[in-house]
Amino acid sequence: MKIHIVKIGGHLINDQKVIRSSLEYFSKLQGYKILIHGGGKKADFILNKMGINQKMIQGRRITDKETLDIVVMTYAGMINKNIVAILQSYHCNALGLCGADGNCIQSYLRDKTNIDYGYVGDVNSKSVNTHLIKFLLKKNIIPVFCSITHNGIGNLLNTNADTIAAYIAISLAREKDSEIELHFCFEKKGVLRDIQDSESYFKKINFHLFQKIKKNHTIIKNGMIPKLENAFFALKNGVSKVSIGLPNYLNDLNHKTILCL
Amino acid sequence: MKIHIVKIGGHLINDQKVIRSSLEYFSKLQGYKILIHGGGKKADFILNKMGINQKMIQGRRITDKETLDIVVMTYAGMINKNIVAILQSYHCNALGLCGADGNCIQSYLRDKTNIDYGYVGDVNSKSVNTHLIKFLLKKNIIPVFCSITHNGIGNLLNTNADTIAAYIAISLAREKDSEIELHFCFEKKGVLRDIQDSESYFKKINFHLFQKIKKNHTIIKNGMIPKLENAFFALKNGVSKVSIGLPNYLNDLNHKTILCL
Repeated sequence: MKIHIVKIGGHLINDQKVIRSSLEYFSKLQGYKILIHGGGKKADFILNKMGINQKMIQGRRITDKETLDIVVMTYAGMINKNIVAILQSYHCNALGLCGADGNCIQSYLRDKTNIDYGYVGDVNSKSVNTHLIKFLLKKNIIPVFCSITHNGIGNLLNTNADTIAAYIAISLAREKDSEIELHFCFEKKGVLRDIQDSESYFKKINFHLFQKIKKNHTIIKNGMIPKLENAFFALKNGVSKVSIGLPNYLNDLNHKTILCL
Repeated sequence: MKIHIVKIGGHLINDQKVIRSSLEYFSKLQGYKILIHGGGKKADFILNKMGINQKMIQGRRITDKETLDIVVMTYAGMINKNIVAILQSYHCNALGLCGADGNCIQSYLRDKTNIDYGYVGDVNSKSVNTHLIKFLLKKNIIPVFCSITHNGIGNLLNTNADTIAAYIAISLAREKDSEIELHFCFEKKGVLRDIQDSESYFKKINFHLFQKIKKNHTIIKNGMIPKLENAFFALKNGVSKVSIGLPNYLNDLNHKTILCL
């Protein structure tokens, strides 16, 4: 079986109209598919409105208990359930999940040696319960993951959505019975050569080129580097195809950045 | 198959320690089981903290769009996912659902002729997707429902949790291949004769007695009447057993109120 794994994030999540149109494109994708979504700016908005200050240490965000509650509410509640309801209206039988649901994604608390990030969970190659995911797919149910995981002893943890998407892809690819395509969708056509020019996207980036441009901070910015690291990590671990671009071109090889080894 | 359907609500939801102990009792219940939870006071707390005033018309709560967002976040996000993570730590393979997930519970917007309740969804005998529920149960997955439903055209709706529990029970009972027991759990031992005396619970209430005491407002208070209406509605529609009491006595016929026709 071929499985499309689609991550949507960035500004696609912030605006209700943009979410709807992104989900319409996703709903039209044929075959088995899985959606993973980020949180956009919605948690920040709620935190601000509740007067909760974002904790930062050495420029990194810290997920304390208060922040975790808001992040869980926003990602697993508001965003995830709205996405599911919209997909249902497009006749996509979506089912929303966090990592605790059906023990789908078990993570471990991030090491606190240097910085205590708080309730942040990292995943590894054993984290994803592919059995449940395949079981749902075969029932024509479309799993929709938010970026909340659990540690198995009762705690929810905040996890990076790109990393979750990569590990779901890798874990399914490892089983050799499926061909896995991973698509990172955001509000741009691809990885841009010039951030000011929305048409300047790379058609293709191979690992060698990535290593080169990574060193040149004028070409790709900090936020894009971990996304590309995840993408190449997936390619090196059995995922057939990885692309970065707009949800409009999920099925179109020309209007996006294709990554290859 | 025998299926236990357990609703937890009231003060059981408000305190983390009490939730944990209620869920420990639930986890020990043998056989197929489903959990439905209410929202307690948590949504009110978030609404207050965000400075959103509760809208009331003729003494009834109105779920406007702003309130709906908070209710979805709190019920489907924070409460549901915390319950699932705790159950997982008790080795219960729980999976959290709102009505939109897998199109489990489709509701219709409440009639606006007299009062416009806003985003409130009512359910009927066709609302519950028993196919998905049984499919999960047979995989030893425990469905955990919050009281959010959807209307199939992209909107989430706020629905009464007792009513959801009753309709899930009735819909499963209708299929004749299962024996359904419905338990309404809250912070008291049962339906009290005297609200001041926690030991004064009825051991048994039949429909005739219910009709009698319903007229006498000193015996059962307003909040309990819809719960009992739901309970008798379930009994009249094929549910084998309905009880009201503490989660501590889920499996004990002596320390609770048993309802019968």
